[in-house]
Amino acid sequence: MMRLLLSVISFYQRTIAIRISMWVVLYTFYTALVVWLDSHYITQHLNVPGEMHTVLGASLGLFLVFRTNTAYDRWWEARKLWGSLVNEIRDFTIKVEHMVKVPAAERNYIPDLLIAFAWALKEHLRFGVRLQDVYPPAVTPQNAQIQHVPAYLTHLVYQQLAAWQNASKIDRFDYMMLDLHANQLMQICGACERIRKTQLSRSYLWFIRQAIVFYLLSLPWGLISEFHWWTVLACALAGYFMIGTEVIAEEVEEPFGTSDDDIRTDDITRTIERSTREIVAFCASDEMLAAKA
Amino acid sequence: MMRLLLSVISFYQRTIAIRISMWVVLYTFYTALVVWLDSHYITQHLNVPGEMHTVLGASLGLFLVFRTNTAYDRWWEARKLWGSLVNEIRDFTIKVEHMVKVPAAERNYIPDLLIAFAWALKEHLRFGVRLQDVYPPAVTPQNAQIQHVPAYLTHLVYQQLAAWQNASKIDRFDYMMLDLHANQLMQICGACERIRKTQLSRSYLWFIRQAIVFYLLSLPWGLISEFHWWTVLACALAGYFMIGTEVIAEEVEEPFGTSDDDIRTDDITRTIERSTREIVAFCASDEMLAAKA
Amino acid sequence: MMRLLLSVISFYQRTIAIRISMWVVLYTFYTALVVWLDSHYITQHLNVPGEMHTVLGASLGLFLVFRTNTAYDRWWEARKLWGSLVNEIRDFTIKVEHMVKVPAAERNYIPDLLIAFAWALKEHLRFGVRLQDVYPPAVTPQNAQIQHVPAYLTHLVYQQLAAWQNASKIDRFDYMMLDLHANQLMQICGACERIRKTQLSRSYLWFIRQAIVFYLLSLPWGLISEFHWWTVLACALAGYFMIGTEVIAEEVEEPFGTSDDDIRTDDITRTIERSTREIVAFCASDEMLAAKA
Amino acid sequence: MMRLLLSVISFYQRTIAIRISMWVVLYTFYTALVVWLDSHYITQHLNVPGEMHTVLGASLGLFLVFRTNTAYDRWWEARKLWGSLVNEIRDFTIKVEHMVKVPAAERNYIPDLLIAFAWALKEHLRFGVRLQDVYPPAVTPQNAQIQHVPAYLTHLVYQQLAAWQNASKIDRFDYMMLDLHANQLMQICGACERIRKTQLSRSYLWFIRQAIVFYLLSLPWGLISEFHWWTVLACALAGYFMIGTEVIAEEVEEPFGTSDDDIRTDDITRTIERSTREIVAFCASDEMLAAKA
Amino acid sequence: MMRLLLSVISFYQRTIAIRISMWVVLYTFYTALVVWLDSHYITQHLNVPGEMHTVLGASLGLFLVFRTNTAYDRWWEARKLWGSLVNEIRDFTIKVEHMVKVPAAERNYIPDLLIAFAWALKEHLRFGVRLQDVYPPAVTPQNAQIQHVPAYLTHLVYQQLAAWQNASKIDRFDYMMLDLHANQLMQICGACERIRKTQLSRSYLWFIRQAIVFYLLSLPWGLISEFHWWTVLACALAGYFMIGTEVIAEEVEEPFGTSDDDIRTDDITRTIERSTREIVAFCASDEMLAAKA
Repeated sequence: MMRLLLSVISFYQRTIAIRISMWVVLYTFYTALVVWLDSHYITQHLNVPGEMHTVLGASLGLFLVFRTNTAYDRWWEARKLWGSLVNEIRDFTIKVEHMVKVPAAERNYIPDLLIAFAWALKEHLRFGVRLQDVYPPAVTPQNAQIQHVPAYLTHLVYQQLAAWQNASKIDRFDYMMLDLHANQLMQICGACERIRKTQLSRSYLWFIRQAIVFYLLSLPWGLISEFHWWTVLACALAGYFMIGTEVIAEEVEEPFGTSDDDIRTDDITRTIERSTREIVAFCASDEMLAAKA
Repeated sequence: MMRLLLSVISFYQRTIAIRISMWVVLYTFYTALVVWLDSHYITQHLNVPGEMHTVLGASLGLFLVFRTNTAYDRWWEARKLWGSLVNEIRDFTIKVEHMVKVPAAERNYIPDLLIAFAWALKEHLRFGVRLQDVYPPAVTPQNAQIQHVPAYLTHLVYQQLAAWQNASKIDRFDYMMLDLHANQLMQICGACERIRKTQLSRSYLWFIRQAIVFYLLSLPWGLISEFHWWTVLACALAGYFMIGTEVIAEEVEEPFGTSDDDIRTDDITRTIERSTREIVAFCASDEMLAAKA
Repeated sequence: MMRLLLSVISFYQRTIAIRISMWVVLYTFYTALVVWLDSHYITQHLNVPGEMHTVLGASLGLFLVFRTNTAYDRWWEARKLWGSLVNEIRDFTIKVEHMVKVPAAERNYIPDLLIAFAWALKEHLRFGVRLQDVYPPAVTPQNAQIQHVPAYLTHLVYQQLAAWQNASKIDRFDYMMLDLHANQLMQICGACERIRKTQLSRSYLWFIRQAIVFYLLSLPWGLISEFHWWTVLACALAGYFMIGTEVIAEEVEEPFGTSDDDIRTDDITRTIERSTREIVAFCASDEMLAAKA
Repeated sequence: MMRLLLSVISFYQRTIAIRISMWVVLYTFYTALVVWLDSHYITQHLNVPGEMHTVLGASLGLFLVFRTNTAYDRWWEARKLWGSLVNEIRDFTIKVEHMVKVPAAERNYIPDLLIAFAWALKEHLRFGVRLQDVYPPAVTPQNAQIQHVPAYLTHLVYQQLAAWQNASKIDRFDYMMLDLHANQLMQICGACERIRKTQLSRSYLWFIRQAIVFYLLSLPWGLISEFHWWTVLACALAGYFMIGTEVIAEEVEEPFGTSDDDIRTDDITRTIERSTREIVAFCASDEMLAAKA
Repeated sequence: MMRLLLSVISFYQRTIAIRISMWVVLYTFYTALVVWLDSHYITQHLNVPGEMHTVLGASLGLFLVFRTNTAYDRWWEARKLWGSLVNEIRDFTIKVEHMVKVPAAERNYIPDLLIAFAWALKEHLRFGVRLQDVYPPAVTPQNAQIQHVPAYLTHLVYQQLAAWQNASKIDRFDYMMLDLHANQLMQICGACERIRKTQLSRSYLWFIRQAIVFYLLSLPWGLISEFHWWTVLACALAGYFMIGTEVIAEEVEEPFGTSDDDIRTDDITRTIERSTREIVAFCASDEMLAAKA
């Protein structure tokens, strides 16, 4: 319990905590200034009733929940996409191992490409990626400048499937069942790109921010007549709440970075690699066993 | 931080900002008039309690969130549809490159049609489009007056697939796997048309607008006894919030235009074109390489 | 702007406006009676605090939003179903035109059936339909009394597909790809029937209505001590809001009628007809062109 | 209008109305007791401010909406599943009639099984069902004690499909297209079982109930200083609202019973039977017509 | 009714009840301390208005509902996944029994593997599982250390399917129809792993907790001037509500454990086993019957 309490206060997402704190401190100075001005210079006529802020605060709360929901939905959709990438690659690998009638070494070209695809997609969604960083064996002078590396790797997958089919290593039904998973690669990649490139409609974004700014700037004037110096604390609390919601939403709605709040795509990619290698290993081992028998 | 603060105040979606401001200014005049009337002529008997507006305001807030949610859902659904258009076209292109056993030049007819389809759909959802503007090579005297250009391009895709099949360039399995993506063209087009042509049920639309009008017109009378001249500021704030929500929702729920809030269909179409061309290029280059080897 | 303002006040869904107004007027009489009684006869002891109505009003607001959401979801789901009917029929028509190796005249039997299906479904969801009203050519003495006309038309579609297959005009793959769209006809029809026949769970319906009635009947007693004659106006506003929400929800949750709030199934059906005819036309024209070449 | 008003007061779901009333009456006695105690014995020191109950009431309202939403979602999902059962059975029947090349009498074994499946599923979701009650022809000494009748009927469907295939009455493509619908039988059955067997997470259930109990027990103490004897009425109203929401949610979240709030599975099953029989009838009649021609 | 009332107070999820109580008791001590301090030492200047806590409480309520919703959605998605595991295994078993032309004893290898898969998945989502605990017959020296047992069992399923196909016991269509269900095994497993490994975005988690802590710590200071010693009771009630929501959400969002709130995966697995065994039994019995006839 003590541990939890401490972590509540200190542990926290560092960069976000800094951004939130900075804004809250700034805002606290502003409210302190307002209260000081009010108590020294403007002695009688500034007496805004606080009622208005109650209603507006409730409405703004609803909009912050809307903001939080949409940001979280993007984040969770992105997580689902990476989850289904894991599934598709596992299924694809298992099927390749059992369907393609070629030596294990040749067969494993596909699992290798799939692992490279996962690494490439992860980087592609951050700052871009070059083919030599994720799958050096495939580098030729022609493709060194390829822009869309995940698409290129998908092309290599289909090229291999086509080659195996022409060599009668797989038949049309195998092709169809493998295609089920292969065409998901581009679907997942495209959906991730959509999340990465599309923000919440700009007008909503600015409108919500502006509403927060208007609300917080006017809040001390509404509380001062009743709260006096407590205005500073009350405003700091309200400001912390609103600014925090907005800053976290901004962070969460871009889920492919490297901060603590982002999806652990590094971990997931490693899981894909480990899990794919294990499948390949036990398929090979069982095949040898069956060959001996 | 200074930069953000400035942008909060100035940057903002221009036309929307103008529409919102216009209405808010108008409403502010109205409240000023009410306060002036009240303080000069109607000295005692107009004393409406403000409590009612608190409850109604909360309820109206809930409806504005409902409005915002439905508008945003339409916008996001439209974005998803364009995202899946990108995916389908990429998958379709990769498959055509690897499945169809004809020279690259002939094969590229399909990618060309798909790019034209994206351009045509974009314009079709705005002010309509003529075939000669998106795919001049296919223009004949007969089809110059075609109404539904995306449907016509889809027909050309199926015509080509049928031709290749009759010439045994693809077999039935290829046809089936290509059809998976080809039949999505009309599905996406139809879903976009649905979003474009269907408004939120008219009664809700008018009911929400009327409720806002009633609320805002009666609001100054409810605040005046307690707020006096501050009524103008409080009403301006409330009016800004409600009118802004409604105006933005109206803008966002029609996502296929050219304003800043609309989906960047121009950019997405260019992405489709660039990405499709790149896939065609590296498939051709790898094919030559394989041919030499 | 003047135009919009006018339309806000006047344009409005007529029958709904009448139903809402009628109830609001009735309720206004009741509140006026309460206030009159209170001010003339019950001089001191009726002094209910208004606080309770604030909380209950907020809770009721949440339930009205729940009601609005479920009504709107039904409406939007119905709209999506009709949208996908458009898509399926277009895809089906394009495929029939390119897959079936029979003269155009014979091929067009399917598009004709599909158009008839759309008309039949539209009427079936209203007051029922007879086969002779939508597809006279198929009427025989045996089927004149058919109850479920959309099912019968679907049967005719499958009958034709079976016939073409037996005559080797389409092969098994064509059949499968056409079946993809043909089996959607009954799926869409069944889903529309579900929406039409199922109301929101009865208990919720009556509970929400009863809660509105209890709330509105007790509201004037809660406001009177503070609002006096303003009670009438405040109650009228609250009543307008609650009754309006309920009446519109009732209207919107039955989306297949002919009122302004219902889905424009007439328009959609006409779009299906026009669009299908255009596809048939340009397929025929391009086929002739190809035949000449 | 008079009719509607009357029905609001009287019509109402009987057993639920009784349960709600019983609890509300009990609670009213409690509040009356509290007020009586307060006014006779505890003359000065019990003076809890009512403010707390306003905030807690709003929060509790949010949770009741959460409760209502989840209950309704289960109900609507169950309704959708039965709707899709109708669709799958119709599509299955039409396809069997047109694909299977055997005499009508033999073919109709499948529609008979599907109708029996619907009846069996309905009872299976209530108190269990025995095979002899839904499909006597299939009863043998071995299967008289079958526990899972819907699974057994699905097995019979697949057995018949396998038999027809072995006798070359259907080919592999027919089998695949029929399997599309046949495998939905178990999917729908399993999804309905899931809804029937899973409650909302127990902790939420008890937490919400406990929160209601705490709230209602403490409510009169919070209102009494301001409301006096009106406390009884105000509490009765609040109690009616909260208890009603909870009781209805409990009723609605178990949608497969026989009360008025449950899904009309009896009606839907009859619709399935009637509609399937009609499809069989007009397929047979049209086949004879075609045979003569 | 008495029974229900008792259970409301006592029955309750034990460990959760203890955690909630512990925190609430701790918090009650804190508020008592505050009130005692206030009434003895700080006689005049601490007079924070309670209004702020009303608005903040409502906003926090919205966030707690957001928290509850996301926790519940994870729980319900997990329940759906296990429900579809039941469906897929039943369908898979029925199909294997009717499609594979081998003696019953050999055929039953697949149902055995599927039952083992369900047991393995259940344990895999808790503390890991070893192959010898769920399917001893398959243990070999090579696979004793397998990490991902569900993937290994899926591999065995595909290995058997491949073996049967090579021996012409099933054809390509059978393979495709069986693959429909087989590839769901890894999809369900991956989706469960996603739910198990991903928490709500950390920032939200800490932000909501911090907001609760700030709110509850400041709450007594806001109530004390008006509530005096009642502050303790009011805070305990508010604390119970907020802490309870958070603690339950933490419990519910990890749905694969063994506590009462978790999904009854043990029961579901037993249902899968019983139901699969029954299907195998009646398929075998009916087959013998058919063989005799």
